[in-house]
Amino acid sequence: MKSTHFSAAALAALLLVLPAGAQQATPAVQVAPGSVPEFGTMWTFDAPPLDYWQARHGFRPDQAWLDHLRLAAVRLPGCSSSFVSPDGLIMTNHHCARSCIARVSPPETNYLRTSFTAATRDEEVRCPGTYVDQLVSIEDVTGTIRGAITAATAAEQVAQRDAAIQAMQARCEKDSGLRCQVVAFFNGGMYSLYQYRRYDDVRLVFAPEQEAAAFGGDPDNFTYPRFDLDVSFMRAYENGQPLRSAHWLSWSEAGAADGEAVFVVGNPGSTGRLLTLAQMEYLRDVSYPASLADYQRRLDLLRRLSAESPEAARQYEVTILGIENSYKATNGYLTGLLDEGIMARKAAFEKDFRGRIEADPALKATYGAAWDEIAGAQLELATFATQSRHYAMGGSTLAGRALGLVRLAGQAALPAAQRLPGWDEAGMERVKEGLLRDQPLDVKLEKGQLAMWLATAQKELGDGDPLVRAFLQGRTPEAAAEALLAPSTLGDVAARKALVDGGARAVQSSTDPFIVAARELEATANSYVRHAAQLGSVISANAEKLGQAIFAAYGTALPPDATFTLRISDGVVKGFPYNGTIAPYKTSFYGLYARSAEFDDKPPFQLTEQWKMAESKLDMKTPMNFVSTADIIGGNSGSPVVNRAGEVVGLVFDGNIEMLPNRFIFTDEVSRCVSVHSLAITEALRRVYDAAHIADELKAARR
Amino acid sequence: MKSTHFSAAALAALLLVLPAGAQQATPAVQVAPGSVPEFGTMWTFDAPPLDYWQARHGFRPDQAWLDHLRLAAVRLPGCSSSFVSPDGLIMTNHHCARSCIARVSPPETNYLRTSFTAATRDEEVRCPGTYVDQLVSIEDVTGTIRGAITAATAAEQVAQRDAAIQAMQARCEKDSGLRCQVVAFFNGGMYSLYQYRRYDDVRLVFAPEQEAAAFGGDPDNFTYPRFDLDVSFMRAYENGQPLRSAHWLSWSEAGAADGEAVFVVGNPGSTGRLLTLAQMEYLRDVSYPASLADYQRRLDLLRRLSAESPEAARQYEVTILGIENSYKATNGYLTGLLDEGIMARKAAFEKDFRGRIEADPALKATYGAAWDEIAGAQLELATFATQSRHYAMGGSTLAGRALGLVRLAGQAALPAAQRLPGWDEAGMERVKEGLLRDQPLDVKLEKGQLAMWLATAQKELGDGDPLVRAFLQGRTPEAAAEALLAPSTLGDVAARKALVDGGARAVQSSTDPFIVAARELEATANSYVRHAAQLGSVISANAEKLGQAIFAAYGTALPPDATFTLRISDGVVKGFPYNGTIAPYKTSFYGLYARSAEFDDKPPFQLTEQWKMAESKLDMKTPMNFVSTADIIGGNSGSPVVNRAGEVVGLVFDGNIEMLPNRFIFTDEVSRCVSVHSLAITEALRRVYDAAHIADELKAARR
Repeated sequence: MKSTHFSAAALAALLLVLPAGAQQATPAVQVAPGSVPEFGTMWTFDAPPLDYWQARHGFRPDQAWLDHLRLAAVRLPGCSSSFVSPDGLIMTNHHCARSCIARVSPPETNYLRTSFTAATRDEEVRCPGTYVDQLVSIEDVTGTIRGAITAATAAEQVAQRDAAIQAMQARCEKDSGLRCQVVAFFNGGMYSLYQYRRYDDVRLVFAPEQEAAAFGGDPDNFTYPRFDLDVSFMRAYENGQPLRSAHWLSWSEAGAADGEAVFVVGNPGSTGRLLTLAQMEYLRDVSYPASLADYQRRLDLLRRLSAESPEAARQYEVTILGIENSYKATNGYLTGLLDEGIMARKAAFEKDFRGRIEADPALKATYGAAWDEIAGAQLELATFATQSRHYAMGGSTLAGRALGLVRLAGQAALPAAQRLPGWDEAGMERVKEGLLRDQPLDVKLEKGQLAMWLATAQKELGDGDPLVRAFLQGRTPEAAAEALLAPSTLGDVAARKALVDGGARAVQSSTDPFIVAARELEATANSYVRHAAQLGSVISANAEKLGQAIFAAYGTALPPDATFTLRISDGVVKGFPYNGTIAPYKTSFYGLYARSAEFDDKPPFQLTEQWKMAESKLDMKTPMNFVSTADIIGGNSGSPVVNRAGEVVGLVFDGNIEMLPNRFIFTDEVSRCVSVHSLAITEALRRVYDAAHIADELKAARR
Repeated sequence: MKSTHFSAAALAALLLVLPAGAQQATPAVQVAPGSVPEFGTMWTFDAPPLDYWQARHGFRPDQAWLDHLRLAAVRLPGCSSSFVSPDGLIMTNHHCARSCIARVSPPETNYLRTSFTAATRDEEVRCPGTYVDQLVSIEDVTGTIRGAITAATAAEQVAQRDAAIQAMQARCEKDSGLRCQVVAFFNGGMYSLYQYRRYDDVRLVFAPEQEAAAFGGDPDNFTYPRFDLDVSFMRAYENGQPLRSAHWLSWSEAGAADGEAVFVVGNPGSTGRLLTLAQMEYLRDVSYPASLADYQRRLDLLRRLSAESPEAARQYEVTILGIENSYKATNGYLTGLLDEGIMARKAAFEKDFRGRIEADPALKATYGAAWDEIAGAQLELATFATQSRHYAMGGSTLAGRALGLVRLAGQAALPAAQRLPGWDEAGMERVKEGLLRDQPLDVKLEKGQLAMWLATAQKELGDGDPLVRAFLQGRTPEAAAEALLAPSTLGDVAARKALVDGGARAVQSSTDPFIVAARELEATANSYVRHAAQLGSVISANAEKLGQAIFAAYGTALPPDATFTLRISDGVVKGFPYNGTIAPYKTSFYGLYARSAEFDDKPPFQLTEQWKMAESKLDMKTPMNFVSTADIIGGNSGSPVVNRAGEVVGLVFDGNIEMLPNRFIFTDEVSRCVSVHSLAITEALRRVYDAAHIADELKAARR
């Protein structure tokens, strides 16, 4: 096993880390020069596709180039970011810093509305709880983890694997003082130990108005042409002083140009490119339609409540935006799965993959049954997916709490081995914390969602179902919601605390109507959880087999599915066919003012006062956003886009709507990564915001 | 029969003109208040849908309003236009005046490049051959035309009908001194006599640069958002003086506003909303795919030739644009026919329609067989559509001429009754004129298209086909093209004249290789023409039956298919869902400068010098183009868009790409009519062009 700490000395010796069993690999068909890999281009830093980049872009970076990018990029929880000055200046999206911006706003102001510029370093204000992680080493630990697995049953194997991972992480943190994470690639086909240096003093430096950062709001979300200044700057501090970072990205003078090769460095969260056809069909036919219907119902309810008063509208605004966002994304994924061309490509790949495995008797014996076992489990999951969903009781806050209270009492009384999956000591502690959090109950909303959930359950499960009978008791959903809520005390944290503390005895004797129903239904609810978990472990064990089989079939040239760890994706700055014509590779400040004027300056297309006042000072031709064929997904927000010189030419903040199906198969005919152009950032800092000193810091940081 | 001359006195007495047989009509299902009629909204002026407008827009115009619009609108050949001042000022599209603009450009200038403004009336320059027609009366003549049809066979019936129409038109022109046209509506289900006053002294007043009028070129053609100043002004003169028109449209001060009801008055050319499913399937499966393949081949050839030199590029530019336009349109129609939703709606309508006819024994006896007879004829046409296409020899200029010469000699020798359809005296005269027109032959292009045609014929008809054998004689298409062209004299007008004048004897003894081949193939070519014509008459006779049946089934509330006669369509100014977000109801000057900047000012997105220089003077928020749900199609170009007050708020110049399938079924979810906003016209006249006096004339003409 080879450790690849990226110290300056070790760099020259870096080799591709080969997973066990890759020796028999035939050449990867997906990455023929000039073609686009169906598995995408989210390359790991320990396996940069140098030949592929040479063939596609005529560019072969050296190891120093790669290491520099890796160390200049830092991971924010849920997002990506990068150092862009030797004084620890960090660039990320506005939407990645939103909670910090809200929290550091003084009582009388809201920086989300007003924008924020620290005029001096003294004014830079610490973001509570915010930290960034810098990836300092990657080590292949597949052998060690696999070696720890000796048991015969799947459940025991999983436990052994998890224990080995925990142990390795703990030892690593103790030894190095760094943050250590064992990352499972290819569904567990390969394990790597990632070590991070954490910087936990992060301060806000600059943020534009939310309305400028997210111009176009929900309608323009996931689309392009686009006109968003979705940027913010923070600064890492060490010992109370700005971090003297050795690695930072230089700022390009010209920014992204049409047709040039670009590289996105960031932390894509999750893709499903190794999913089997059966898994995709389950998402298409079962999961996504149910989620969309649920989002739609919740949106209908929240919009109805919002219509009642301006106060209610304000109250539900953020929740509505979040659900709309989920709806649009899920609908985009579903669109991809409903696309016959995409499914045909997936089917062709799976046929080829299976063919390669079945052609070799040894491979066939080890991996050949995996597809059918997954398909069987997915089919069985589908038979009770509706029941599972309703018996989780997530449709009502109080019903969910009641089930949590009943389960907590029951599971605590059981020996560990007999508990439900996830209900170990830590899991029970989390449930308890949730139950004891003192949040006021929105009675109107709860009444609405309870009635809605019961109506849906009645329709989907039928009048004879025990859950429907227990909650409705022959009443209409609305009447039942009224009757259940009136006497219930579960909205009160003290009442919940009494039940938590009172344990099984208190729960057994409670007459709260939600507790009564949850007691009656718990056994059935638990049986669904166990059944789903058992099928889930069949799927995950076989998916791991496929993650190993893929090496045997195609070698090591494929990038693994996203794992919210650092990747580098290559792409080209390029417009695309859209709307019967062509979308340009970039937008402009002209376009921002156009889109606002064309909607008569109405929200979410209104310009802020600062932008209105700045118009005469701006170079209106300044590029605002641009598109490239880089491969990104949620988690990549805030990733820097760099050119061959490693200079910042842009900042990733979104994909177009055509990119959503890339979750399953990467294509680049019309799917595009959407970024803020680097010139828009400096022009806005200088002319719209009183922040020329930040633009100057970026300029001075040029190498 | 009721004559409805729209004299001031007769206006109050105007009634809906009912066609014969409409008495049994059940209420029209398509125009329920609030719903959108599938047959569209291209209403005739003698049947304005007052109740429908009342229900949809809360607006019930009086007869004076309707008459005023009818008389202010004037028809340009192939286009629409309107009087917009008491001094005969005519507004239409730039693309409707393009040939005039080119022809009146002095030798050293090209007004298409430079723009043109007549500073005074003396500078207004006459457009040779241009005239406009004003619709002064409409009369239902269905009874008279039908009464003239007494024969038993379809061919004789057609001849009788055509004779009756010719006679009526001639008598009308003699009596009134006006232009008279009998218009067949509903495939001949109804006939109306339209009388026009013609103004044939029309002078160019203003035209912007072609690059501003058609900004975005082919890519943006048929799309929206759009940024085109597709306007020109002309002026009608009478006796050498500007026409004192009693009817002109007043200019709106505010222009089109979001959500307002608008009316488009113009001459839509042709729709196929009464087509049967079988006819649509023929277009979908036979006609359109063949046309698209042909366009594609021609584009490939012309682009190849254009790449050879800048001169060649200039030479073929207009032809390429024209074919690209046809390609995009045909592809849009095909997209509609391939849309399962659209075909399902059509099928549902046809089922309902047939059900209504079959429910009444008398109607069933008269009309019930029409659908199946049409379907049978279309199926039979499909069996030799490929042969028909190639044997027409349109793929080569010289082959086409050779077939014309051979046929001319042959047909002239036959008695009238035995000639091919269309080869009466007038038809032969037109063929002769075409053959004797002195146009230089583009040898390079002819060689390319000949080789391309022969290669296609070989592929589609097979080596054994007589046409393939006659032209190829075992050679490759390229070699055959060389060998055929070298000795041929048909490129020379004198040689053609000798063959025309020499008649059958000269043609028989010619050794020109094209003539030799055409002689050999003529009989077969003629048999395809006759067969297609026979099936065509079956289709047209049955389509006419359906045009009568539609009254019996649905009454008179449906607007007829477009006939390039004056219609008024209602709609609403309204954006639409597009590209995952929303298209605004209007665009702006900001947007024009944005789209240019975003393509780095490259053609076809470059701004002209005049526009670049004007930027600082412009109100950049000025609306540029806007969209509405009005129902338009080719021929509507140049139609004024008016508000309830009858004032000009815009100028129709295109539809979006989603509108193309409206040819078959009208929908308004996403299909939109695209117009120049009236404010863009006056702002550009004042600030970009030295033409404030024209803006002043429009302003002074406000009532």
